[in-house]
Amino acid sequence: MLDKIDHIGIAVQSLEAALGFYRDALGLPAEIEEVPEQQVRIAMLPVGESRIELLESTSPEGPIGRFLAKRGEGIHHICFAVADIEQALAQLREQGARLIDRQPRAGAGGHRVAFLHPASAHGVLIELSEAPPAG
Amino acid sequence: MLDKIDHIGIAVQSLEAALGFYRDALGLPAEIEEVPEQQVRIAMLPVGESRIELLESTSPEGPIGRFLAKRGEGIHHICFAVADIEQALAQLREQGARLIDRQPRAGAGGHRVAFLHPASAHGVLIELSEAPPAG
Repeated sequence: MLDKIDHIGIAVQSLEAALGFYRDALGLPAEIEEVPEQQVRIAMLPVGESRIELLESTSPEGPIGRFLAKRGEGIHHICFAVADIEQALAQLREQGARLIDRQPRAGAGGHRVAFLHPASAHGVLIELSEAPPAG
Repeated sequence: MLDKIDHIGIAVQSLEAALGFYRDALGLPAEIEEVPEQQVRIAMLPVGESRIELLESTSPEGPIGRFLAKRGEGIHHICFAVADIEQALAQLREQGARLIDRQPRAGAGGHRVAFLHPASAHGVLIELSEAPPAG
């Protein structure tokens, strides 16, 4: 069901400060983009087949702004790539897992995504992501 | 410097309960082992080129026991695979990163590992791991 770790999302106060470590000290390349609908600016840093996603909030009311206020900087979620997100959600429901999204919704870059509840995943917020068809 | 995400370590109260989600609901294979020197029982679940590492404490005084008492279940650390751990640590020192281990120490399976301080990594405990020479 899970193909790979797509990315690990890390909430940070300042993208520029965090890039000083993740890009400059660890030597990873970085691409920055704004995602207004999620109230974040993000930096994506590829490592192997996965990526590190640094998340800076653009609003204290957004999901990352609230996470930072409550928990401080740190890992926010893990995202797994799946080939068939409907099948994955159906299997998880059947196994009794709690879902935040019962149906996939639109994510960045044409991906379809859904979040699972941390209560099922032993304290971890898990995102599933299905890539758009190639071509 | 970083080749890939080697594993993501997740602290859990009970390996058996957590396997109900990570192995059975997510459908990942699992191998269980005891690591007495770290006071943990672990389950390793491969996903793509990486692994999920579930960590159950065998003692309230161990590192995972103390983490669970303070923070509850959740992600404990991220481990990156590196080809040359001395070179990686030298580069990080030069860049001003705070290290927990200034020199690599022995990890499981003949790996050499070192931890970086979460204060440098914006709230994330990072492990570096160099695999033993092949053959």
